[in-house]
Amino acid sequence: MKQFTSPLLQQTYELRQSIRRKEHTGVTSGLVEGAMQGNVVILPADWANEFLLFCQKNPVSCPLIGVSEIGSFAMPELGNDIDMRHDIPEYYVYRNGEKVESRSDIEDLWQDDMVAFVLGCSFSFENALSKAGLTPRNIEEDVNVSMFDTNIATTPAGRFFGNTVVTMRPYTPKEAIRAIQITTRFPKAHGAPLHFGSPEAIGISDLSEPNYGDAVTIKEGEVPVFWACGVTPQAVIRNAKPPICITHAPGKMLITDILDTDLAVF
Amino acid sequence: MKQFTSPLLQQTYELRQSIRRKEHTGVTSGLVEGAMQGNVVILPADWANEFLLFCQKNPVSCPLIGVSEIGSFAMPELGNDIDMRHDIPEYYVYRNGEKVESRSDIEDLWQDDMVAFVLGCSFSFENALSKAGLTPRNIEEDVNVSMFDTNIATTPAGRFFGNTVVTMRPYTPKEAIRAIQITTRFPKAHGAPLHFGSPEAIGISDLSEPNYGDAVTIKEGEVPVFWACGVTPQAVIRNAKPPICITHAPGKMLITDILDTDLAVF
Repeated sequence: MKQFTSPLLQQTYELRQSIRRKEHTGVTSGLVEGAMQGNVVILPADWANEFLLFCQKNPVSCPLIGVSEIGSFAMPELGNDIDMRHDIPEYYVYRNGEKVESRSDIEDLWQDDMVAFVLGCSFSFENALSKAGLTPRNIEEDVNVSMFDTNIATTPAGRFFGNTVVTMRPYTPKEAIRAIQITTRFPKAHGAPLHFGSPEAIGISDLSEPNYGDAVTIKEGEVPVFWACGVTPQAVIRNAKPPICITHAPGKMLITDILDTDLAVF
Repeated sequence: MKQFTSPLLQQTYELRQSIRRKEHTGVTSGLVEGAMQGNVVILPADWANEFLLFCQKNPVSCPLIGVSEIGSFAMPELGNDIDMRHDIPEYYVYRNGEKVESRSDIEDLWQDDMVAFVLGCSFSFENALSKAGLTPRNIEEDVNVSMFDTNIATTPAGRFFGNTVVTMRPYTPKEAIRAIQITTRFPKAHGAPLHFGSPEAIGISDLSEPNYGDAVTIKEGEVPVFWACGVTPQAVIRNAKPPICITHAPGKMLITDILDTDLAVF
């Protein structure tokens, strides 16, 4: 086992190793306080430029924090000894826009022309919310965050088009106002919410039936607050239908060595 | 007429002079873009220390931007040649907690022991909202902002206690999120909202019947957003019952020479 002088770098390295050995296979929310987590999209090179443009046009749902060299499964700017083929707890494999399997490892699917993209994740601001006394309900209830498909269109780029996926956390209005201020500081983790209140207004029919993740309790006096989510590319890939695309499973993220606060503003 | 090198200082001076001559007697919202406006509270000296403490304990509803010397009706830190006895379009006079009259001038009521307090006003962020495409409805409809008594308790200080008064501006949730970000920059103008959504949750029964100011249209898909208001001292004075207290009439403020952006953060 490698040794690092920074306790945080030791923790992130050891967690990635534990994920690589498939000892940790669950959701990563709340793990290694202070370390950014990332959404993952892996595409063949001839789809990568258009996806890069898609991220540029949709920086709130797709805040890029890392792009690999073509064919390289390392991600040195995001962490020590990252191997994108092994270091995510669960992968989804999409072929021609359809999810065909989920698996713990993609070594045998890796191609020499693949490019890996890592997008910031709202888990990065959950720590800041918790420290402010606004612990997200999904953390309180120890479940995956609720994620929903919406009718909020992304800006298309090349073959990529579709609607935004959101995470939902319930708060009282007073708490929501503070949560908006806090999450505004984290533009690389989706920043401020897109919406609060009426789910129907953004095309969500039932908050108890999330499209991804788990339902959480909404208490009397609380309103649902919706943030853009890095699962958005998975909705878009269903439309674009690339021959192959590999993503993380929602809630099971890449653990990076970057601090949440490194990419915060103010 | 005095001449100033700064066009803004010329404008604020001339508007105050026009108010002093009682040529301008109406609400001041939207006048002299960029200049801070202030709520006014004038109290005898033996009530002033407790009111100062009240403001310190309630900085969101009572963001102090100026305090006069005892007996002085000038306010040199807030503007050239301000005379607190003449330069507000309309004054309210409270005796023993009851509003007994409104008048355009208080020269004959001024006492040698009076202290004038000026508190920031939400009109200071209305300009920033308008520039962001979020023109407040009261400006669009050319009426005074809607103000409401609430059940949100202030923190008491000495003889001062009571509930917070709020202003209300309707926005869609998406607009409200942006308005929260924008107004957060203006802590001396009440900063971010206190509440959005259900009026009943903060003790307001009917948005079409404001306690002060005018009702505004709320459109389909909009939610009411509530900011703390510098009329709060007037609600508190009704409880504290000082022998005399003079305030501005809601919406008819002191025009200062301070820039809205001078006291902004970020």
